[in-house]
Amino acid sequence: MTQTSKNIAIIGSGLVGSLLAIYLKKRGHAVTVFDRRPDIRTIEFSGRSINLAMSNRGWRALREVGLEDSIKEIAIPLEKRAMHVNEKPVYFQKYGKDGEAIWSISRGILNRKMIDLAEESGAKFKFNEKVWDIDLPEAKLFTGETEKSEWKEYQYDLIFGCDGAFSRVRHKMQRRSRFDYSQSFINVGYKELTIPPNADGSHKLEKNSFHIWPRGKFMLIAMPNIDGSFTCTLFLPFEGPVSFESITNTKEAQEFFKTYFPNVRKEIENLAKDFFKNPTSAMVTMKCYPWTYWNKVALVGDSAHAIVPFYGQGMNAGFEDIFVLNGLIGQYGDDWETIFSEYQKQRKPNADAIAELSYRNFVEMSSKTADQKFLLQKKIEKWFSNKHPDKWIPVYSRVTFSDKPYAEALAIGDMQEKIMKEVMQLPDIAEKWDSEEVEKKILALLDN
Amino acid sequence: MTQTSKNIAIIGSGLVGSLLAIYLKKRGHAVTVFDRRPDIRTIEFSGRSINLAMSNRGWRALREVGLEDSIKEIAIPLEKRAMHVNEKPVYFQKYGKDGEAIWSISRGILNRKMIDLAEESGAKFKFNEKVWDIDLPEAKLFTGETEKSEWKEYQYDLIFGCDGAFSRVRHKMQRRSRFDYSQSFINVGYKELTIPPNADGSHKLEKNSFHIWPRGKFMLIAMPNIDGSFTCTLFLPFEGPVSFESITNTKEAQEFFKTYFPNVRKEIENLAKDFFKNPTSAMVTMKCYPWTYWNKVALVGDSAHAIVPFYGQGMNAGFEDIFVLNGLIGQYGDDWETIFSEYQKQRKPNADAIAELSYRNFVEMSSKTADQKFLLQKKIEKWFSNKHPDKWIPVYSRVTFSDKPYAEALAIGDMQEKIMKEVMQLPDIAEKWDSEEVEKKILALLDN
Repeated sequence: MTQTSKNIAIIGSGLVGSLLAIYLKKRGHAVTVFDRRPDIRTIEFSGRSINLAMSNRGWRALREVGLEDSIKEIAIPLEKRAMHVNEKPVYFQKYGKDGEAIWSISRGILNRKMIDLAEESGAKFKFNEKVWDIDLPEAKLFTGETEKSEWKEYQYDLIFGCDGAFSRVRHKMQRRSRFDYSQSFINVGYKELTIPPNADGSHKLEKNSFHIWPRGKFMLIAMPNIDGSFTCTLFLPFEGPVSFESITNTKEAQEFFKTYFPNVRKEIENLAKDFFKNPTSAMVTMKCYPWTYWNKVALVGDSAHAIVPFYGQGMNAGFEDIFVLNGLIGQYGDDWETIFSEYQKQRKPNADAIAELSYRNFVEMSSKTADQKFLLQKKIEKWFSNKHPDKWIPVYSRVTFSDKPYAEALAIGDMQEKIMKEVMQLPDIAEKWDSEEVEKKILALLDN
Repeated sequence: MTQTSKNIAIIGSGLVGSLLAIYLKKRGHAVTVFDRRPDIRTIEFSGRSINLAMSNRGWRALREVGLEDSIKEIAIPLEKRAMHVNEKPVYFQKYGKDGEAIWSISRGILNRKMIDLAEESGAKFKFNEKVWDIDLPEAKLFTGETEKSEWKEYQYDLIFGCDGAFSRVRHKMQRRSRFDYSQSFINVGYKELTIPPNADGSHKLEKNSFHIWPRGKFMLIAMPNIDGSFTCTLFLPFEGPVSFESITNTKEAQEFFKTYFPNVRKEIENLAKDFFKNPTSAMVTMKCYPWTYWNKVALVGDSAHAIVPFYGQGMNAGFEDIFVLNGLIGQYGDDWETIFSEYQKQRKPNADAIAELSYRNFVEMSSKTADQKFLLQKKIEKWFSNKHPDKWIPVYSRVTFSDKPYAEALAIGDMQEKIMKEVMQLPDIAEKWDSEEVEKKILALLDN
């Protein structure tokens, strides 16, 4: 395939923007990355981040450009969940089979490293340069101090919008006719909190676990960092009897942690301080279509499909966009119109599927973690899956440890759910859940 | 209730903006209406309009401020559909009971009249003044020649966004966190066409009918004007074998009308000319929430809930917003925070319901008008409703000839649909559709 070197602008120097820069440099293009914010390597990170969980799709995209090993150096493998239920000992749930793990990475550390790598590969970065307008058919950018100041004009061959959930590039596309768009917020917010390392630098909680304190309508999670600390995220309704609105001072925050999270009591003082230092952030599912404009402009990552974080797939989905896009570039060479059109056709159903799965996980975590019937169902699925690994791959494993399309995971998950609904109706299922009868029933339903 | 006179800005001088101005003037407020376009009374109307079908909700809102009679002078009552099926004589379907009708009004004529009336009531109009930004918490407006020119600042007590489906006011609200928003286009576009009057000024088609030429994936409609003409709307897919895309010249347009609309053949030359003169427009369902900002800003009409036109309820829903808002002002006086919060809580579920009903009517008109089973079902519903008018009010009548909430119409319609699904499964239903057995079956199902 012929491949002419193009002059390419990427808007956004986040994870997706910098990885895309590396990919496009490898293909010989001239790449400039614009970001309206300062260089993240020169400032303190925001205090509103949830640690990343890199899984199979993310690693595959990094491996393709030779970055897997260097990124694994700043990541910690988590092969299990550590469930902290009050008045019970911590119990562990393995994520998958032996050797399968998700990897905890600090967003700030990863982003800095990715920008370093992109610069090494030859991409140019323009920080503190605000893009205010885009001429879509001409692939022109306009930047300036403010929206009303004098603007500088740039001409490119191609523009990629990697500028996140509140993308300016998409915003420009959105004003066109026949552009479908939706943004939908959930009524739960989140706040970043930190558990510092022990004096000797070791982790205060079990290091290779994803820690969860499920509490029905809210929960706390903690993921380890390489410096011995944990980045915690408190998910809590914005309004209501126990909510961000209802906690207004340090005393109330301390009371809240004492009541609901007594086993992280030692850390509470620190948590309560962070509580008022760090902002409360909202979570949105954002969908749109089309993702591209002719052979000129394309959205990649959150700008095309922002999702709620409850499946840990936001970054993985964005990195997979790049992997797919790169495959199409290999296939269609200079034909960017076909590349863009195939890209959006292939990715859109998968982006919708992971959005749906992530939202369902939010509902599940909020309302079902304490439901005995739900836990029994999960236990049966696991038992059956262990007996027949070829016949029953749990949705979580398909999403997290495979590179099969998200849309397939969603469809098969719905089919499995239908089967389990019938199984759960069997009389005395709680007693005979691991019986031959149940096994045969599932096998028969699978054959339907 | 105390009622302090406020200084109020309305953005948009369309139907909803001008009616709201009249209502607010009646309550003693100072009202200024801004519009970025020229005064519609001084220019030719756009050629992209569908005639309005004023029904009960619209009339009620006009009656409340004494305008029903003067608007009826420019409206034509339509008490029936005239169905034009090829190779069959025209047949008529009554909309409701005797005396029930929808009223055809030209959007341009009505809008001009409404602005006249609003001016007479004391509202000030500022045409050609473009609002570029709104300071929501301060209720400030910024206007100017262009987005980048110098801006003029206005301070108000309250701002109403009546600026339609692509509202600037909503656009500003949309950039806030936790603002839910969606815009979803259908794959069918429309084009305005005209059937001129006879030489003697009379109508070329039956005057008191809503004319429909259903053709499966597309259709033509015609609604009468008081000058003897008909405003026609051609609904046609954007792409595909028979589509706006596939008709590229006058010859193809003439061929299209000859093939699919032979009984309006006499008019084809005119229609084919209009076809290329008038633009093709897209149709969108737009939803958002919240509709208000503190006690400062509120969205009314299409800016809060744009719907596809297939139920003829867009304007009626907007006028009903105003009627409800006015009731709340009467109830809560100066407490604009409560007025706005009650307004959006009451109206949102109804706006969602009419959006859903309108979209379903699009699907129904596109795919079911030729389905014998569907027509039989409608016939049974009508027959039963005539026998038991107290037990079965068709959804269309609830929406069009009552002022019961849209959400109720949708819910009852779903319940009726479920009953009819069972009835349609009765063996030999086509033969015994008007039997005592069917009547008893429906009565029993209603009692469930």
